[in-house]
Amino acid sequence: MKNPPSNLRLKGSLAEQKKLSEKVFSGELLHVFKDEAILPDTSIGRREWIQHPGACAVVSLFSNGDCVLIQQFRYPAQQLFWEVPAGKIDRGEDPFSTAARELEEETGYQAEEWTYIGHFYPAIGYADEIIHIYLAEGLIPGHQNMDKDEFLSVYRVPFNEVVGMIHSGEINDAKTISSIIRVQGFLERDRMK
Amino acid sequence: MKNPPSNLRLKGSLAEQKKLSEKVFSGELLHVFKDEAILPDTSIGRREWIQHPGACAVVSLFSNGDCVLIQQFRYPAQQLFWEVPAGKIDRGEDPFSTAARELEEETGYQAEEWTYIGHFYPAIGYADEIIHIYLAEGLIPGHQNMDKDEFLSVYRVPFNEVVGMIHSGEINDAKTISSIIRVQGFLERDRMK
Repeated sequence: MKNPPSNLRLKGSLAEQKKLSEKVFSGELLHVFKDEAILPDTSIGRREWIQHPGACAVVSLFSNGDCVLIQQFRYPAQQLFWEVPAGKIDRGEDPFSTAARELEEETGYQAEEWTYIGHFYPAIGYADEIIHIYLAEGLIPGHQNMDKDEFLSVYRVPFNEVVGMIHSGEINDAKTISSIIRVQGFLERDRMK
Repeated sequence: MKNPPSNLRLKGSLAEQKKLSEKVFSGELLHVFKDEAILPDTSIGRREWIQHPGACAVVSLFSNGDCVLIQQFRYPAQQLFWEVPAGKIDRGEDPFSTAARELEEETGYQAEEWTYIGHFYPAIGYADEIIHIYLAEGLIPGHQNMDKDEFLSVYRVPFNEVVGMIHSGEINDAKTISSIIRVQGFLERDRMK
């Protein structure tokens, strides 16, 4: 056990360098690569991974503190999830435009106030996906316009109940957990300063 | 906007039924499928997804409240991450055995007290992966034994500092965020009862 070091020193000692990269599947959504990497001990390792364009997640709050949640059936795990509105960044789109577009398309709301909260990585073992978190406030009616293969239901739930749904396990989507918790921290720690 | 419904009613109206499934890539780590699904409006949708055996994440605490974190270079995003020890469930392995094995292999510690905290899904848009969260206490020295292509550094950080690293964005791995926050809730809400 050691004390936390500087990131720079560690980066040198643990980094894995790309040697060869082969695209093994190119789908509509998924782009899968099989690479050879030079490992820290100079041996060669195989790395299979998903290339992803990145995504945005939106925590949207009404002035009374209600949060907009959606419930959506997700095919891979074959079940419904409680989620914050979110979606992939389109080619050439900036993340803020993605966030504003996804909020309106999925929930029918626009927001007058936006705050960038931070980012996280959902699946570091096999994907390069980054998700940007936005806080949206000052909600006003816009136009719901879901993708043609997208079906979901929209709800408003008091923010403190949403936090409770994380701790009870009712919310179990890591994207939603990470986004809500970062916004909770922002509201309690940073905005109060 | 509606009030939250029962999951059962929604499940019927939003579910997507598997029609055809084709395995398009079978790797050492990733198993990729391209399916046709019957959508809620009876149209056919394409669904690309990753089949994953599931994983376990371990939040391990010393009696003074220090938490074991590892720092590991992750190839897909080409950067170092702060993480809790975690790993895939081997074929035929039960999740608790995975958790105990990964804690010892990655950190060199065994634990005398184990608590199952809950589970989450890291990437519901394209993977069926479930991650089980365990709290490990009563840590005693064991034998570190990393996979031959695994390189990482082990640290101990006070638990409240770990929570601070989530809110500052220094910890940005969703698996680690979700696991730490669920354990924080357990320690503050459930254990005190």
